[in-house]
Amino acid sequence: MSEATLDIVAIGNAIVDVIARADDAFIDREGIAKGSMRLIDTETAEGLYGRMAPGIEASGGSAANTVAGIAALGGKCGFIGQVAQDQLGEVFAHDIRALGVAFRTAARAGDPPTARCLILVTPDGQRTMNTYLGASQYLPEEAIDRDLIASAEILYLEGYLWDPEQPRAAMRAAIEIAHGAGRKVAFSLSDAFCIERHRADFRALIADGDVDILFANEAEILSLNETDDFEAAVSATAQQVPTLVVTRSEKGALAVKDGERFQVPAEPIDQIVDTTGAGDLFAAGFLAGQAKGLDVTDSLTMGAIAAAEVISHFGARPESDIKTLIARRLGA
Amino acid sequence: MSEATLDIVAIGNAIVDVIARADDAFIDREGIAKGSMRLIDTETAEGLYGRMAPGIEASGGSAANTVAGIAALGGKCGFIGQVAQDQLGEVFAHDIRALGVAFRTAARAGDPPTARCLILVTPDGQRTMNTYLGASQYLPEEAIDRDLIASAEILYLEGYLWDPEQPRAAMRAAIEIAHGAGRKVAFSLSDAFCIERHRADFRALIADGDVDILFANEAEILSLNETDDFEAAVSATAQQVPTLVVTRSEKGALAVKDGERFQVPAEPIDQIVDTTGAGDLFAAGFLAGQAKGLDVTDSLTMGAIAAAEVISHFGARPESDIKTLIARRLGA
Repeated sequence: MSEATLDIVAIGNAIVDVIARADDAFIDREGIAKGSMRLIDTETAEGLYGRMAPGIEASGGSAANTVAGIAALGGKCGFIGQVAQDQLGEVFAHDIRALGVAFRTAARAGDPPTARCLILVTPDGQRTMNTYLGASQYLPEEAIDRDLIASAEILYLEGYLWDPEQPRAAMRAAIEIAHGAGRKVAFSLSDAFCIERHRADFRALIADGDVDILFANEAEILSLNETDDFEAAVSATAQQVPTLVVTRSEKGALAVKDGERFQVPAEPIDQIVDTTGAGDLFAAGFLAGQAKGLDVTDSLTMGAIAAAEVISHFGARPESDIKTLIARRLGA
Repeated sequence: MSEATLDIVAIGNAIVDVIARADDAFIDREGIAKGSMRLIDTETAEGLYGRMAPGIEASGGSAANTVAGIAALGGKCGFIGQVAQDQLGEVFAHDIRALGVAFRTAARAGDPPTARCLILVTPDGQRTMNTYLGASQYLPEEAIDRDLIASAEILYLEGYLWDPEQPRAAMRAAIEIAHGAGRKVAFSLSDAFCIERHRADFRALIADGDVDILFANEAEILSLNETDDFEAAVSATAQQVPTLVVTRSEKGALAVKDGERFQVPAEPIDQIVDTTGAGDLFAAGFLAGQAKGLDVTDSLTMGAIAAAEVISHFGARPESDIKTLIARRLGA
């Protein structure tokens, strides 16, 4: 096993977010489950966009947000994801490359266009996501860059990418490459509804030892285990993965690593503006901490600080210099 | 002269902003005059974009920001400007229509793409703009919607649109239509460098009585009059236009209407994040006040509040409910 040259390589949906304010009545009228992520087709996307308030556009995608965060924290990263040859594809590619992330997946010609996620942010800062997958769902197995994956300490995968068929096959291939090269695999459960769609697959991945580091929030760990008992869910899953990280919003976060449990409180925050990317940036902080050789508690703290920063403004990627924020806090 | 059904119709560049942080050293290395607006060609735009930090995209364009602000304040508006048939064109059209602004200019087929402005925001909140005009410079005279212009109390024009040849002709035609229908014409001087390019034209417009309400900042009114003496500049120009409005950043703003002078202080603000759109939103607040029948001082105050809101966040259009902010302040 050769020395890793990258900290993390991620595979995920390559999405540009369209972020707009909406009130609760609008979410109700549209018949959307507030706080969730749903997949929408072209027609629904066009209709919803037509009714939405003015927005801003910002690169997104769950795993892409995570590598963007790790790169902003000084980590070396790669990303694999499918954009189309269009303006939003150029925006996505520019934004991730400008952070120094290796992104070499060739843009796809013709229809459909680059994926976008119509994100409705309610006055309480909660985000409700409507994802049009477009080109993103056509990530082919050939796009899985063996050398890139073998060169990274950790392969990071988002559960959302389990929805479309082609990327699912690509991710299974990537797990084999990573483990074959002696690397670790990290997996985010992404969303409770996503788990409902793929519970058997996700459970099998975990039971088969395909996942070394698992990220979940409270709703997800409960859904995965089909229980209302949080402690029972944590305990059951922690026995199956070497490292389990569970975020609990304002209740902080915990990790169980090789049977030992660690926890940190949530970071104080003045005002929650937009929760988009909170879980993605928590994972970024935690993984960046682990890559730097920090202990589990400090890695969780890095996650909490990165998550607190991203929910204090619109958009799912850091705006502030989170590297300095964290260095100050950890006295590094 | 029939009753006006709209408060304002504006003609301007139809631009999507790409906003990114940059430090002063980056601006220096690129050889750009900090705080200014420069026009760039495709090659320069691609090179600069490749070197810029990750950005966010938001609809912009000076006069478009102004009508967006007036619409957010409850005014009835129309906009005329040229986008291309592409994704950024769809973004621009969506954002302005979502505010209830009548925007009917047909998107232009083929190259060039929709205009974009690469905006570099330095740590002091100052914005430096690099504008690729693209489709925007091909606004044809036929796009000047006579009925739309005749239906609005005020026609609002941005000086920036004087740069490209076709829109300049279109604006001259629009001024004739507006005055022929008994409407007023408002004009923004836009930028000191823009005045250097078109000083003779701008002076002739003013001298010929084509402008009823003129907006300028301190640098612009000095440049227009080729003097360093602020009071002399204000006095000279005020004699040529029925209403002159001059913004002075932290020194507040003043207006001279029919020989009488009014002034207001700047609104207090916690932190200047991004000054993009400050002048545009000042104009929005002032014109919305005038449309509501407020006196000159209250109209200036509306301008100051709208400008203060827009510089407290990234992007050139209001994020907060500025209508409520202003109602609270003016006790309306």
